[in-house]
Amino acid sequence: MSRPELSTDLPFLVADLSLAEAGRHQLRLAENEMPGLMSLRSEFAESQPLAGARIAGSLHMTVQTAVLIETLVALGARVRWASCNIFSTQDEAAAAVVVGPNGTVENPQGVPVFAWKGETLPEYWWCTSRIFDWSTEAAEAGADWAGPNLILDDGGDATILVHKGREFELAGAVPATAETDSVEYGVILDLLRDSLTTSTDRWTRIAAEVQGVTEETTTGVHRLYELERDGQLLFPAINVNDSVTKSKFDNRYGIRHSLPDGLNRATDVLIGGKVAFVVGYGDVGKGAAEALRGQGARVIVSEVDPICALQAAMDGFQVAQLESVVGQVDIFVTTTGNFNVIRPEHILEMKHHAIVSNVGHFDNEIDMAGLAKIEGVSRVEIKPQVHEWNLPNGRSVIVLSEGRLMNLGNATGHPSFVMSNSFTNQVLAQIELHTRLEAYPIGVYTLPKLLDEKVARLHLDALGVELTELSPAQAAYIGVSVEGPYKVEHYRY
Amino acid sequence: MSRPELSTDLPFLVADLSLAEAGRHQLRLAENEMPGLMSLRSEFAESQPLAGARIAGSLHMTVQTAVLIETLVALGARVRWASCNIFSTQDEAAAAVVVGPNGTVENPQGVPVFAWKGETLPEYWWCTSRIFDWSTEAAEAGADWAGPNLILDDGGDATILVHKGREFELAGAVPATAETDSVEYGVILDLLRDSLTTSTDRWTRIAAEVQGVTEETTTGVHRLYELERDGQLLFPAINVNDSVTKSKFDNRYGIRHSLPDGLNRATDVLIGGKVAFVVGYGDVGKGAAEALRGQGARVIVSEVDPICALQAAMDGFQVAQLESVVGQVDIFVTTTGNFNVIRPEHILEMKHHAIVSNVGHFDNEIDMAGLAKIEGVSRVEIKPQVHEWNLPNGRSVIVLSEGRLMNLGNATGHPSFVMSNSFTNQVLAQIELHTRLEAYPIGVYTLPKLLDEKVARLHLDALGVELTELSPAQAAYIGVSVEGPYKVEHYRY
Amino acid sequence: MSRPELSTDLPFLVADLSLAEAGRHQLRLAENEMPGLMSLRSEFAESQPLAGARIAGSLHMTVQTAVLIETLVALGARVRWASCNIFSTQDEAAAAVVVGPNGTVENPQGVPVFAWKGETLPEYWWCTSRIFDWSTEAAEAGADWAGPNLILDDGGDATILVHKGREFELAGAVPATAETDSVEYGVILDLLRDSLTTSTDRWTRIAAEVQGVTEETTTGVHRLYELERDGQLLFPAINVNDSVTKSKFDNRYGIRHSLPDGLNRATDVLIGGKVAFVVGYGDVGKGAAEALRGQGARVIVSEVDPICALQAAMDGFQVAQLESVVGQVDIFVTTTGNFNVIRPEHILEMKHHAIVSNVGHFDNEIDMAGLAKIEGVSRVEIKPQVHEWNLPNGRSVIVLSEGRLMNLGNATGHPSFVMSNSFTNQVLAQIELHTRLEAYPIGVYTLPKLLDEKVARLHLDALGVELTELSPAQAAYIGVSVEGPYKVEHYRY
Amino acid sequence: MSRPELSTDLPFLVADLSLAEAGRHQLRLAENEMPGLMSLRSEFAESQPLAGARIAGSLHMTVQTAVLIETLVALGARVRWASCNIFSTQDEAAAAVVVGPNGTVENPQGVPVFAWKGETLPEYWWCTSRIFDWSTEAAEAGADWAGPNLILDDGGDATILVHKGREFELAGAVPATAETDSVEYGVILDLLRDSLTTSTDRWTRIAAEVQGVTEETTTGVHRLYELERDGQLLFPAINVNDSVTKSKFDNRYGIRHSLPDGLNRATDVLIGGKVAFVVGYGDVGKGAAEALRGQGARVIVSEVDPICALQAAMDGFQVAQLESVVGQVDIFVTTTGNFNVIRPEHILEMKHHAIVSNVGHFDNEIDMAGLAKIEGVSRVEIKPQVHEWNLPNGRSVIVLSEGRLMNLGNATGHPSFVMSNSFTNQVLAQIELHTRLEAYPIGVYTLPKLLDEKVARLHLDALGVELTELSPAQAAYIGVSVEGPYKVEHYRY
Repeated sequence: MSRPELSTDLPFLVADLSLAEAGRHQLRLAENEMPGLMSLRSEFAESQPLAGARIAGSLHMTVQTAVLIETLVALGARVRWASCNIFSTQDEAAAAVVVGPNGTVENPQGVPVFAWKGETLPEYWWCTSRIFDWSTEAAEAGADWAGPNLILDDGGDATILVHKGREFELAGAVPATAETDSVEYGVILDLLRDSLTTSTDRWTRIAAEVQGVTEETTTGVHRLYELERDGQLLFPAINVNDSVTKSKFDNRYGIRHSLPDGLNRATDVLIGGKVAFVVGYGDVGKGAAEALRGQGARVIVSEVDPICALQAAMDGFQVAQLESVVGQVDIFVTTTGNFNVIRPEHILEMKHHAIVSNVGHFDNEIDMAGLAKIEGVSRVEIKPQVHEWNLPNGRSVIVLSEGRLMNLGNATGHPSFVMSNSFTNQVLAQIELHTRLEAYPIGVYTLPKLLDEKVARLHLDALGVELTELSPAQAAYIGVSVEGPYKVEHYRY
Repeated sequence: MSRPELSTDLPFLVADLSLAEAGRHQLRLAENEMPGLMSLRSEFAESQPLAGARIAGSLHMTVQTAVLIETLVALGARVRWASCNIFSTQDEAAAAVVVGPNGTVENPQGVPVFAWKGETLPEYWWCTSRIFDWSTEAAEAGADWAGPNLILDDGGDATILVHKGREFELAGAVPATAETDSVEYGVILDLLRDSLTTSTDRWTRIAAEVQGVTEETTTGVHRLYELERDGQLLFPAINVNDSVTKSKFDNRYGIRHSLPDGLNRATDVLIGGKVAFVVGYGDVGKGAAEALRGQGARVIVSEVDPICALQAAMDGFQVAQLESVVGQVDIFVTTTGNFNVIRPEHILEMKHHAIVSNVGHFDNEIDMAGLAKIEGVSRVEIKPQVHEWNLPNGRSVIVLSEGRLMNLGNATGHPSFVMSNSFTNQVLAQIELHTRLEAYPIGVYTLPKLLDEKVARLHLDALGVELTELSPAQAAYIGVSVEGPYKVEHYRY
Repeated sequence: MSRPELSTDLPFLVADLSLAEAGRHQLRLAENEMPGLMSLRSEFAESQPLAGARIAGSLHMTVQTAVLIETLVALGARVRWASCNIFSTQDEAAAAVVVGPNGTVENPQGVPVFAWKGETLPEYWWCTSRIFDWSTEAAEAGADWAGPNLILDDGGDATILVHKGREFELAGAVPATAETDSVEYGVILDLLRDSLTTSTDRWTRIAAEVQGVTEETTTGVHRLYELERDGQLLFPAINVNDSVTKSKFDNRYGIRHSLPDGLNRATDVLIGGKVAFVVGYGDVGKGAAEALRGQGARVIVSEVDPICALQAAMDGFQVAQLESVVGQVDIFVTTTGNFNVIRPEHILEMKHHAIVSNVGHFDNEIDMAGLAKIEGVSRVEIKPQVHEWNLPNGRSVIVLSEGRLMNLGNATGHPSFVMSNSFTNQVLAQIELHTRLEAYPIGVYTLPKLLDEKVARLHLDALGVELTELSPAQAAYIGVSVEGPYKVEHYRY
Repeated sequence: MSRPELSTDLPFLVADLSLAEAGRHQLRLAENEMPGLMSLRSEFAESQPLAGARIAGSLHMTVQTAVLIETLVALGARVRWASCNIFSTQDEAAAAVVVGPNGTVENPQGVPVFAWKGETLPEYWWCTSRIFDWSTEAAEAGADWAGPNLILDDGGDATILVHKGREFELAGAVPATAETDSVEYGVILDLLRDSLTTSTDRWTRIAAEVQGVTEETTTGVHRLYELERDGQLLFPAINVNDSVTKSKFDNRYGIRHSLPDGLNRATDVLIGGKVAFVVGYGDVGKGAAEALRGQGARVIVSEVDPICALQAAMDGFQVAQLESVVGQVDIFVTTTGNFNVIRPEHILEMKHHAIVSNVGHFDNEIDMAGLAKIEGVSRVEIKPQVHEWNLPNGRSVIVLSEGRLMNLGNATGHPSFVMSNSFTNQVLAQIELHTRLEAYPIGVYTLPKLLDEKVARLHLDALGVELTELSPAQAAYIGVSVEGPYKVEHYRY
């Protein structure tokens, strides 16, 4: 995908109608698998609760996100979008969103999207900065300026940009890039330094305009709690990540689907009868173990948390240290979010052609750097995202997605139905901030349990689920309302 | 079981050595299945953290509880015990505890236990009041009075007695029993009225002496939170019920074991191939559904909470309203804790010889009173705890344990290993209150996660689980200590 | 249970009406779980295909067998019955059959049954000989003699008695009991020696009258094939054991139900989280492994047959030699039908309180004799059928049912629904021999696949199964009849 | 892939070395997953049991088949190969086989392969005829003629060609193509007509030379039994299809793997929580149902055979007629081998975007022709092998692989490990015919159970399975040899 001129205000992908048509097709299929979002479109078609909302979105620009964006629009919002990862954009989805359901290349009717697959870091941060530029909308409204009043974030990049931009504007200068700064932070500093040359209060005005942010992931939520703790948070934030219908569905049921999918697409190796080792028995590990057992593998689990270890044992899995069984294992899957959980000394003990894969977090969960440093090691590409590492001991192992998330790299990530749960939480969170802002003084919140339950409720019909209704007497008996919420806050599901 | 003279101070069961020997035998087997408690005995053999503790215990006097009691003693405590249910005492376990591991009938060395199977309500409350009478211990110590300094409670009866006793002593009178009072409350009032005639400050002194209570169940915890909310709580309370190693293990894995056990002992009916209907998909319902599927039944679930309903669907179960499928079902199991979830109108639609059972809560979860009122209905006892109800439509249904908890009534309740988790929490909670009371101002607390993790940790070896240890670098990377705790408070497991 | 006078012709249990009433109650419940038999009663109520049949039955006199007997009667047969095991009679079932559904003690209307729980060997063989004495029926018919014309056998004792009796009558003498003869064979020789003193052709006439036998088990079938091979078989035999609806249902689904039932009733030990070792992965082993996994155990399997071993691996189980893992295992289950598969040297390596049990065959599958011979071993009875064996190494193991079939000894054997499949095969086999004898020259046969399918068909409604029907065109396309049979003979299911 | 000149004798793919290298890479990975074949290479490296064998092979020219071919060569055989399906060739595998492990394009050292992806029917039959032309080998040997002495067949095309060729040569003429002949049969007649013009005894000589055939599939086996029945079979045949290690592994465990793989690659739809309908509960249906349940789907099964229907119920599945539930189902899978099991009237009742797929047999299992004839229907290609059929009722359904086998069309078919079982049977069968021909008079045979067990045995080490060995006493006790076979012939596994 070639990139647009960085100077242009026009969203990138308008030019390609065939791409947009292909994307539109996929959107149509995905809509059927995202009943939560489609239900919101029906429910709020008339009331338009997001009328007046101007949403700056930063989240992987996939087909599922396209359905999210068009749902926000259907509820009255205006939207601008960037991806939150340089590789995760599906160009046809971006194109379809830009053109819109009824648009043409000449007359795109959709949403400005600043994203393409394979951005450089400067391009990525340029894209992110573009979602805060609402000059077109300002012009339409005859205003001399406009910015977003809501952020929808995944990982916190958009939120951080606003906080840092304002901070440096208040300070009057962007600090010099230090040697110890990461490359990426240098790019951010460059961008903000440029910004400061053209405006001394751009980010300050934006920060004042933004009424809140809804955040998708653990990483972003972690940043928000730190800002809150340090008294630096500028607007209320809703932690979508910790909704039950997000964390307990996305993690467990998403991985149950996409782990065997990734293994199959990458290797075509029979899972049945094999010994699989799952590092970690949190929600992701639970989903992984269930999927592998469901395919007839014998699953061994490792854990550091004795509670999760006991759960694994009670669920019938052997729980062992990696060192104890490494030589018996055919398939390794890491799910921890920690680092160096599979290390070179483990890899050197593995069976010939053992498969090594990660669905946890970064590529340091498997110590890829350490693997590359083993003396005499060599790497052969079997096909993209599948590499055979020949070891000095004469054996070789198969590493998927270069140690990165194999359910994304070797398969297609979470299916639409799972994302529909996550994104319905997002939309409800945006509605909360837009319509009931007074209920959210600056701070970090999870969605009220009632809305969490609503998200689940909107996904039942599609699965043919008949929900039972409490009688008023029954509701009174257990001290809840007929409409819910039904559980105490600390209920674990 | 004949009952003792109510006036005697001597615990009841001392006289029967063969009973004690039978109980001792069962204790020995149970100890092997309660590694958490046995580990605490080893760990604290020397330090004796409960030295000086005088514990008044009110909890089902079973074999497992006997192992708990002897663990408390092994850690230095003195203990007096009553059951918390008129039917739940296993007499041989009580006898064994009274005699003690090295005692004889003539010279019992154990713990005074006031409990036998089949108490009347006045007997029950007399027993409960006896655990607060520590005159023997006072005499030994040359003191003119002694009371317990800790309560270990299940359901809150012991705690309530202290609170009510003190309240009426302060008021100078026990109110007359009102017509609207329950029978049981009348018994309590009678007991306290008697007490007031012999002492005007007995309960006031006891209340002052008690430093805290540890509570086992949902019901008792609910009462404690109400006392706290109303500013009436007299001492700190630790909510053992909501430890992960209690609620997520006891409820799910306990029922997975004891539900099919109860069905089999009651009916000998093949579970495989049958249609089972599980009302509720909380932890108990999850365990029930898993057990029935594991025996080859087809399981249908009903739910009022859309989140749990969605979980059931994602776990592969049909989710339907009872009304939709009642005529297809062979085995009904209620798990809700609500009332009237299976009603006469449902029962009249059931298949001939459908099995109706409850593992949720009280006997009103199945509307037994309503069933008995169906015109023309008649009840035949097949064997104890198994009744055939002949319906006017010519069909009959099989009701287990008269609608009460069938895993207790038709089987033997939770196995020792499950109770070892719960009771290890109890012991740790007692140690907390006894040794770190200053950390617990009056209020209701759950155990720190680190202790919850410790409970799990003590049960791993018995199952052959190898726990993995974080390196200091890994612990730092995810921001935890190497020793734990490993998760944020709201983590759902 | 006291025994009758051996000389009397009257069946034993008539005297006790309360026993008969208790049995009648159980029959009524069992009938609902035996839809195959009850369907045959409806189907053949009018045509009475067994009119004229005089059936001598030798099969465990349980509640399920009672339903079988009354089905044979409902189809027109006259029946006399003995048990095929000295311990397996359920007296209340026998009593109910004798009295009959509408009889009284004074006027029993049922079937003569010669069986009680706890027979001696001479009593057992006397009972077996009584099922061949049809003098009452002869008297009724004004004939001077009558014998059965069909045998329904389990294990072959009735069949063997006829063959041996005739053989010795032809020889004119019963051989002296040799020192090497088993005790039981000596009892048989005594009985036949007595018989020869009163009649020189009793068994010869019976053998001539008998038109065929239907045999229930592997052991009996094995004897029949030997008789056939040696040219000594006197009448055709139908091998019911190898019907698919017998061997694949009884073995697999029966044990899946009764194994955990036996473990629970015997020990109350939590199965979840434990390591279970299943010796053998035939149909019984498959059922055992599935049941244990369904309860959350981690199951390890051993096998000698590489095909079954590979199946176990493909089903996700670890396959190991007993010696490799014996010290990790909590629960042992043997399912092989071989001998000495668990031996003293294994037992000495087991964990403390490991549970050792057998659902395979005889009590030599676990080498009980070898266990008893270990120097310094001692046995303590925990309760009937549950023994702790204290080993010289300071550990002890729990042995169930003294090494005999624990699903019978500690639980109640196969549930009615499973037996309904087996017994429906029996009834159909009896009808075949009675109505189409010409199709069965002397030899051993399995039931035609069409009847095997019919047995299955009769059990579908009770489970709510909707069967699909082939169109004539579809049937033609795959070369079968619309009505079946649907598979080639060697199809493995 | 362009095709070679039909007149050339040179195998087609030699020219492309990069293709061969890619194929060689895949072979290397597959070898690790085909331990049965690799074990045979070791075991027979020295004895060379196939020395002198000239094998004409007709079987899908995939990577797994390449490992088979090179195993045959490693055991001493000479081989020529064609595919048995116009679409199934993997060109890189074919190229690798032609070049051979140590060959070059200029100097190929491998096996002549006549196969490429996407042959026309005349090309297909030309390729098949070429595997019978061993003139090169004849020339090498200085003989004036040579033909194969063994056939390895899949579906019977190679066998049929020999039989028909000889038949027409004996008749002296090839019959004219009739209007009722299929197009393909016309192509065969054309080829044989050409053959007759150049030689009057080519196929007669070939038929005389061929000593036997080993056949892979049901279809081919069916043809062989017909030839035998009609007295037309010209040489002995071994039915590999009905080895336990073929039919019970290939069908069940193969589909368990490749069904969800195909669904995922085709649609990316979440399987969890969905309602899946599996038509047929034979081995393929059992594998399909297990896979779908393992992913969290709710599975409903339909069956015509009451035994299989009862098995499905006992395994916990709802068994229903398609008509009863068609409107609730998200994913349809046919597994029957019958035709018209899903018909237009069903499709018109389906949910919007229901997925319709077949893993059973031909594309008439789903009535694709009938679907196309629905008035107003239209078809849109979503991507290759995935089509949306828009129905006149406003809904649409997603049909995979145009109704053909979706595990081949949307995924990659059976994994190597499964094929290793099938192909090890093939090699052993070839050795039997080549070394013990006298044991196989003309007829159709299955492999002796001992060899079936050997196939399993060769796959155990790779899965870490420890096999247990019978002691001689144990073997004697159950009447088998220590080395096997261990079961009676009709054992069902």
